[in-house]
Order: sequence, then C-alpha cells, then structure tokens
Amino acid sequence: MPIDPGTEAADGAPSPTGGAGSQMAREIAEQPEALARTLAELLPLRPEIAALARTKRRLLLVARGSSDNAAIYARYLAEVHAGVAGALAAPSVATLYAAQLDLSDTLTVCVSQSGSTQEIVETLEWAKRCGAATLAVTNVAGSPLAAGADIALITQAGPELAVPATKTYTTQVAALAVAVDALAPRRGSLDAAFDAVPAAAAAMLEPGPALDAMVETLAGTQEVLASGRGLAFGTTLEVALKLEETCLRPVRGLSYADLKHGPIAVVDQHLVTVLVAGPSGPTLPGLVDLAATVRAAGSPVLGLGGDEAFRAACDLAVAGPDLPELLAPLALPIPAQLLTERLARRLGLDPDAPRGLRKVTQTD
Amino acid sequence: MPIDPGTEAADGAPSPTGGAGSQMAREIAEQPEALARTLAELLPLRPEIAALARTKRRLLLVARGSSDNAAIYARYLAEVHAGVAGALAAPSVATLYAAQLDLSDTLTVCVSQSGSTQEIVETLEWAKRCGAATLAVTNVAGSPLAAGADIALITQAGPELAVPATKTYTTQVAALAVAVDALAPRRGSLDAAFDAVPAAAAAMLEPGPALDAMVETLAGTQEVLASGRGLAFGTTLEVALKLEETCLRPVRGLSYADLKHGPIAVVDQHLVTVLVAGPSGPTLPGLVDLAATVRAAGSPVLGLGGDEAFRAACDLAVAGPDLPELLAPLALPIPAQLLTERLARRLGLDPDAPRGLRKVTQTD
Repeated sequence: MPIDPGTEAADGAPSPTGGAGSQMAREIAEQPEALARTLAELLPLRPEIAALARTKRRLLLVARGSSDNAAIYARYLAEVHAGVAGALAAPSVATLYAAQLDLSDTLTVCVSQSGSTQEIVETLEWAKRCGAATLAVTNVAGSPLAAGADIALITQAGPELAVPATKTYTTQVAALAVAVDALAPRRGSLDAAFDAVPAAAAAMLEPGPALDAMVETLAGTQEVLASGRGLAFGTTLEVALKLEETCLRPVRGLSYADLKHGPIAVVDQHLVTVLVAGPSGPTLPGLVDLAATVRAAGSPVLGLGGDEAFRAACDLAVAGPDLPELLAPLALPIPAQLLTERLARRLGLDPDAPRGLRKVTQTD
Repeated sequence: MPIDPGTEAADGAPSPTGGAGSQMAREIAEQPEALARTLAELLPLRPEIAALARTKRRLLLVARGSSDNAAIYARYLAEVHAGVAGALAAPSVATLYAAQLDLSDTLTVCVSQSGSTQEIVETLEWAKRCGAATLAVTNVAGSPLAAGADIALITQAGPELAVPATKTYTTQVAALAVAVDALAPRRGSLDAAFDAVPAAAAAMLEPGPALDAMVETLAGTQEVLASGRGLAFGTTLEVALKLEETCLRPVRGLSYADLKHGPIAVVDQHLVTVLVAGPSGPTLPGLVDLAATVRAAGSPVLGLGGDEAFRAACDLAVAGPDLPELLAPLALPIPAQLLTERLARRLGLDPDAPRGLRKVTQTD
C-alpha cells in the first residue's frame, strides 16, 4: 500500500492512527523544507562558531538516543572532514561520578531535540565547569540547553508530534554538519553540497516499489540486524533504533568490523540484515563484501544507499540521496523512516505512539 | 549439572567438547593465577608509563570485540579515577579514511589479545604518525602490536585455546587498570585493592546454585538484553558478547540510560534481562530501579554483582567480587563466563569453538 505523505499538510494535531495519514508520515514529508530552513538559519553562524572554537582542539559530543546517532556522524565528520579529534561523552561520568576533567581545549556540543533532557543539560553545565566552550543543538529556542550554551544552534524542524524523531533527527544532523564544517580548514568546500540537500531529501520521499518489498520482508521476521560503517554508521544506528522502537522488534546496529568480531555467528536465514551505505568512499568495498557474506549465510539483505555495485549485491535495495559521502547522512535516513512507518502500519501498530515511549525521555 | 573447573589443569591441548571438561572451563579457572602473574608483571611499570604520558592529556583507546569492552572500562576509569579525558577510537578513521589528526597530546592504548589484528596494528602506526605516545596491551610478546608501541604491557594469561576470550579478557582489564592508575594523581590508592584481585577472582569460581538456575532461565528464551552503567558498563557489554557468540543467541548490551531512550519498548515477558553492577557507587540506585521497571514489564531479571538491595530486586542473582567499584571489573566477568560455558553445554553447543568464529579476527 504505497502512500503519498506529501499530500497532507501537517496541521499541528496528532492524527488518528492507521491509513496513510499518520503524523509520522507527514513529518517525514516535511523534511526537505525543514532542512532548507535549518541550513539557511545556521550556515551563516559558521564564523561565530569558528571564533568560539579558535583555541579548541577537541570535540566532545553529548547526546542520547536518536541525538546520539546524529552525534556519532558528527564525530566521524569532525575527524575525516575537519581533522579535529572527536569523542562521545559518557554522561554518567559527569552526572553520577562528577569527574573533574580539564576540558579547556574542548568544544562540547550537546544535542537534544527538546533541549530539556536533564542528563544532557547537567552534562552541559559540567562541561562548562571543566573549562569547555559549548554549543547546543536543539529544536527548542529558549530551552534550558539553548539558554546554557555559548552558542545555540536551533534546528528549524517545527513542532514534532509523532514520538519517533524524523525531521528533528535529520535537522540535527544538518546542524552538526554545519558546526563541524565551521571547524574545517577548507570551510566552504561543502557549500554546493549543502545547497543540494533539500532537493536530494525531496527525491527520497518516493523510493519506489523496492521499499514495499522490504516492508514485506521485515514483516516476516523477528530478528533484524543493521550494519554500516564510517560516515554512514550513525545513520545505521538510527535506522536500527527507529525500526526497533516503532515496530517493537529487537534490532541491533553494528559496524561491520564489530559484526565480524563475534555477532556474525548468529547470522542465518532467520535474520534479516539491513546494510546502510553512503554513495562512495572507502567503506563501500567492505560493505559489498559483507552483503555477499551475509547472503551466503542465508540472511536476506536489504540495502539503503551505496552505489550500483552495492545495490546489486543486496536482495532488495533503495538508492540514497544524490549527495557526497560527507553529507549523505542528512537525507539517507529518509527511506528508512518511510520503511519504518509503513512497517509499523503493516504490523497493525501505531507509528506515532510506540508502546512504552514518550517524546521527552528523562534520564539522570 | 554443576562443574568444578578447578579440578582439571590446562594441558595446552583443546579438549573434546561436552561434559565438564571444556577448554573454556579450564581457562576460566586459570584466571586467579593469570591475574596474579599479570599484576605482578605490570604494576612495576607504572613509573615508566607515567613518564611516557607526562606531556599527554588525553587517552585514546583502540580495540575491537572483547578488547573493546575492556577499553570501555578503561575509558570510565581514566575519567573517574585519573581525571584524564578518554575516547574510543573509530578505527576506520585511521585505516580507511586516513584522517590527519593532531594527537601530540594523546596517549594511545591499543588492545589486542593476539597483537596481530591488522586493523589495530595499522591504527597504532597511524596514531604514531599523528604524534601520539603509544601503549600496547597484548597477550603475545613480540607480536607486531607489542613491537610497534613505545611500551608493551604483556598480559600473562598464557596461551588461550578456546575461542571465547576469558583469561585474556580479564588480564587485559587488569593491564588497562594498571595503565590508567599510572596516570592518576593519587597513584597507589588502589594498591591494596590490586593485591586483593586474585583471591577475589578465585572466590568467583564457585558462584553457587543461583547460576544453574540462571542457565535454565536463559535456556528457555530466544531474547536476552544486558544492561549496566558506568564502570561496570564494559563488563555488561562483555557479558552480552560472550553469551551471544558462544550460545548463538542475539544478546544486546545497553547502558540503562540508552535502554530508557527507546529499546525499553521491546522489554516484555519474552525477553530475559541480565543486569550487571559493581558493588557500590552512584550507578547502583538507578540499576535497582531498572530491575523493578523491567520486572514490572514481565521480563525475568538476572543480576550479576551489585549490593544486597540490587540482588533482592532481581529474580535470580549472583554476588560479584569483594573488590572496590574501580577494580570490580577485573573479576566481575567470571560468573558470566561460567554462565556462558554452562549454557552452551546445556544447549548442546561447543563452548570452545562457536560456529563461525576464529580466534584471531582480521578486519581492515
């Protein structure tokens, strides 16, 4: 049952579930505009970000859940594109152990859709006490996170009412790409690619019939594994999280290197593998090999993104956005979001309100 | 069927499978001696490590698989005990993207049982080119990793023949604890605890009848989730990896904060939850709460370690080692290793040679 999420505008109210009119589907369709607004708002802030980071040599990212998947992308982008060493914070080090670190050489970037998650706000305050400069990436201007940071990068997603993050996720990824690009010695080299993001995202909204075949394949399994690597690894984890929390199936996301170090043992015909790849780059040959290995073990392989050789190595595949590897993660999640929304409805579940989850998660 | 792994000495040859005589069981039982030898060998190197790290402000850990779980412990220990910011490397940044980072302020610690995993050796060489000082943690003196590092910390586990890492894992954890303690301003504060490790590990070899009840609980499920946090989080991931690769069940390891950010939605009576905790510390109250939450969702809860309140909150529990929170991960994996070995045999599987795995994994 293909849907056309573009035909219904968001009206600010949660929709009844079922049918083609889920709130999640509408919010997925809003992403080209949300990305365009976010990039227009944030790209001009790059000189200010660069000035804040002038004496900083490190990037420390603080996030949980979907935001953490966006942060993982930012870490790879920082090291590969900007030559700045990055790390993901372990928030309990701040909030529970109250460790005293010297972060005077560090730009800390705290990522939270709501800007209100207590753990992230507390870790921001801790980073400031440790001497770090701070950026907030949040969808809520005036939130505690935005108010506490040296610079707030406000994503322009608009209110997101469905529980699964879609437009707030891709706009976070866009904000992080802008922040990292501000640190790059060759700032500006991505400007044409940034300009191409909204159109590339719009093209992702009509992925074709392979996506519906993927829905059927996933509907018939209880076990799903997602794998990817490098710049697309954060997207891989986001695909896994989205499928899991929305469709109530355990889904693991693993880098293909970690997969080969143990979990490959459990891959067989009972498990569906989702491989996520950028359009080019040094990780692609390994993913093509992995597709063959996993298929040989009997697992159906669903591919998102990659090049033609990658898609030919998969049982079913959907092309990714027409963007360079460095920025593909701004739109690559979209087909997986569509897949998740359709799979949830196919399984008789409510994509807008998965069991057991709330929009803002509080952790300490 | 309780076993007494201490009654058979390792003879250097793989054993036939089944019965009480698996090679894995023998290697589990060798850990008190292996830990004693490793600590005796490495603790005297602390001044040399401290001198190497004198101008360094950062710890970068490079590892995969079980070694990565040991590295995650080291990252928490570095931040909580030594006040040194740590990070886990993303090896593809080095080996595939060849990023150029300035690591002149960084002590890089590369962890590999064999010292021959190509990806780890290549990342060591990359870190040197980026200006880092380097430590190797490996069980093989003269391996490429040991030869390439400024200082090699050789674990004294002896040859490990079963594929699942047991004694090479806990001795890696011990070596990393020594390396981090060398960086701590109050070096020496853990010396009494280091001395207590071998006896505490020996006490773990007879965990009592609850372990056999855990084996039966796990034998009846297809889905297992492991959760823990902070200093015991690396142990949590190792428990998950060991159960999965040896027993061919998908097992996920998640921090309880990440668990609450989505995957909690899939917890129900079909899933067994394993909670892993140190004996004290600021993460314990949250884990006691998590035990109650997960039980309320219908999932049987198996507890490893913790305090009496923690164990009372679990359906089945085994006490951890009599060590402070900072060093508990040197012996806390032992009951989980015994659990894994017994579960594998209970399922008719060979604990020494899990399907699809080899002792040395090569990734690029």
